[in-house]
Amino acid sequence: MLKLIAAAVLVLNVGAMRAQKPDQLFTATKQQLDVTKVVLAQETAWNKGDLEGYLGSFKDADDTVAMLAAPTRGMNNIRAAYRLNYPNAPSMGTLEESDVEVRALGEGFAMATGKYHLARSRKAGGDVDGTFTEVMEKTTAGWRVIFIETT
Amino acid sequence: MLKLIAAAVLVLNVGAMRAQKPDQLFTATKQQLDVTKVVLAQETAWNKGDLEGYLGSFKDADDTVAMLAAPTRGMNNIRAAYRLNYPNAPSMGTLEESDVEVRALGEGFAMATGKYHLARSRKAGGDVDGTFTEVMEKTTAGWRVIFIETT
Repeated sequence: MLKLIAAAVLVLNVGAMRAQKPDQLFTATKQQLDVTKVVLAQETAWNKGDLEGYLGSFKDADDTVAMLAAPTRGMNNIRAAYRLNYPNAPSMGTLEESDVEVRALGEGFAMATGKYHLARSRKAGGDVDGTFTEVMEKTTAGWRVIFIETT
Repeated sequence: MLKLIAAAVLVLNVGAMRAQKPDQLFTATKQQLDVTKVVLAQETAWNKGDLEGYLGSFKDADDTVAMLAAPTRGMNNIRAAYRLNYPNAPSMGTLEESDVEVRALGEGFAMATGKYHLARSRKAGGDVDGTFTEVMEKTTAGWRVIFIETT
């Protein structure tokens, strides 16, 4: 279930679309929807075990930053860290994001935050629950992650 | 010691200004310096036990968000959470920020990240080490925090 929350208010609750309460229906801007598409595409790629597809949502730049277990700077280092931590599909498990909020930071940037649940076999590392914060930039190639922090 | 890092590179190392190495000297934009002033003012207010002064660096809005132990939305709730967790000067302890990086997100927004060490007596809760991520907006009143996440 994906919740999309605007600057101040709940925007869209995809999972509840069919049984929507009036107070859950708000307007998502095109920008918020575009950013949400990237978040959803990340989840989809991840759940196919497609780590390269997931990493394709990041801006391929030396100043892209991932605050994972340790701060990691530059797409080459970020790619290496993810490959090390998620060497195969079982280690990636099944990712479910929730309470996703998208907030515009001007026209060219946006922030997406939310919770995640990673379901994995105990052998592959076990389940993980946490939060994520992503800052995205509207590049010529589309919205790309320039900063990610997971807890 | 404060480190100010630009989009890709180290900008300024205040603590090392007197014994500066050439490869540590870069240019900070006015925007980065303005945002850094807010970060420094937060630390100064905090270390005076001036919680209201610290909270004055936040945008007084319903959509300001603090990801503390739990996600907290709106300045009234954020103020209440801080007052609950830091009821007096000993509980606030002495805050030292390091590895502070400031990154422009267009002209109207910026991100500041870094590490912090909170020194406190054991009775007041003990020391804490973590990271912080702040997103700031350039408001008519100056740069204000619209999102903070601490780990």
